[in-house]
Amino acid sequence: MKQPLNVIKIGGAVIEDPEKQQAFLDGFVALKGPKILVHGGGRIATEIGERLGMEAIMVEGRRVTDDATVDLVTMVYGGLVNKQMTAKLQSLGVNAIGLTGADGSIIRSVKRPVTNGVDYGWVGDPVEVNADFLTKMIEAGGVPVIAPLTHDGAGHILNTNADTIAGTIALAMAEFFEVNLALTFELDGVLADVNDPESLINPFKESFFIEMKESGAIHSGMIPKLENSFKALHSGVKGVRICKYDQINSNHGSLLQI
Amino acid sequence: MKQPLNVIKIGGAVIEDPEKQQAFLDGFVALKGPKILVHGGGRIATEIGERLGMEAIMVEGRRVTDDATVDLVTMVYGGLVNKQMTAKLQSLGVNAIGLTGADGSIIRSVKRPVTNGVDYGWVGDPVEVNADFLTKMIEAGGVPVIAPLTHDGAGHILNTNADTIAGTIALAMAEFFEVNLALTFELDGVLADVNDPESLINPFKESFFIEMKESGAIHSGMIPKLENSFKALHSGVKGVRICKYDQINSNHGSLLQI
Repeated sequence: MKQPLNVIKIGGAVIEDPEKQQAFLDGFVALKGPKILVHGGGRIATEIGERLGMEAIMVEGRRVTDDATVDLVTMVYGGLVNKQMTAKLQSLGVNAIGLTGADGSIIRSVKRPVTNGVDYGWVGDPVEVNADFLTKMIEAGGVPVIAPLTHDGAGHILNTNADTIAGTIALAMAEFFEVNLALTFELDGVLADVNDPESLINPFKESFFIEMKESGAIHSGMIPKLENSFKALHSGVKGVRICKYDQINSNHGSLLQI
Repeated sequence: MKQPLNVIKIGGAVIEDPEKQQAFLDGFVALKGPKILVHGGGRIATEIGERLGMEAIMVEGRRVTDDATVDLVTMVYGGLVNKQMTAKLQSLGVNAIGLTGADGSIIRSVKRPVTNGVDYGWVGDPVEVNADFLTKMIEAGGVPVIAPLTHDGAGHILNTNADTIAGTIALAMAEFFEVNLALTFELDGVLADVNDPESLINPFKESFFIEMKESGAIHSGMIPKLENSFKALHSGVKGVRICKYDQINSNHGSLLQI
């Protein structure tokens, strides 16, 4: 029987609020057994970029990553956010190891080709996970804390969506572990009406997701997150839950069903 | 018999020159067997700090690390420099893992107390190395690439001298490996006259170092580097060499002797 493994993703908006971050970390510390943390950090990069005189260029909600921007996110995601969180987790008794996809070649990506005339720059879509190396680090007692950066195998860091990283890692680790994935954010889960917390959809069935997508009832930013999650469920991940950042030890939120 | 391990330190001035960095990395890639890279990066932090409107505050050649500065060096050393070098080494076939002292609690430090009225801020002096965890990473086929940052075990990142980190790691790993330490920089080694490359001191005896220190013949910045290195030799490190960045596979430079 495979050993359980929790893969937990936390978004940038929670990280930059000290109280919310603490509430999340307390829950993460309490989580028993092998675990992996994947974090975002977008807004902090935007703020530091502005202080450096850079303007965030967004196309359809995604950051265009030019030369200066990939340096910025490498500093902010891989340095500031990742190491501060690692040091905090260490102080809470978790043997955190802060990593990017380049470290131990945990995640190799391909640079996204120009699509419909849009060149996203140094943005990567994962193609290969070194699950063996991640497993060895977990067996050594480490808790990987992964920043949303990957590499292309040719010496470049690539900016990569944190939800995508969490889903990709969950899927690759399912070969060795019984993986549960939780994508956490500020809301209670997937809401039918984003302004009504009582409208939580649970369980959240794939058939319903397809209906919502077709009718345009779902926020465009949620679509890749959900597509990725259903793909993980189809490929051997045991459970995927979308929930509030302080609910990782509960069964609250939207449990996905295929 | 213990397996050999090379611990190599590279300074910030070499890192920021692309040609020199490449020459160093080519040598590092060619180095056989288990190895650890420790890097500096001071000048790059100063340059990015200036762009952020920060001024480097130096006291006796050491950076004073206030709240904003520790965030800056965490970004630059732990993020930009460390991850770019890791991605480059991966492209050259080395399974690099970029780390700080916080990761896997590889190096825990104490915040330096106020000395002679000088408060260096978030600066750390190492007290504990997790050699067991580093060894497991090496056994898993990884090549640690370590930024000059440590943590205090209470959730804070501390700015730590790269020579000190290299010496401290060499010493701690000497329990498990036959360790050779090379501190590399732009000069050929320790020079009696810094303007005369022919004045290389080799071997460099501890008794001579003590004489030079007493007569004031040695540059103040070299003193902690050398004290640290002789201490490592006294504590079980097999060899310590100070040499040029492109000479790590030769026996050129100043070989220390006790």
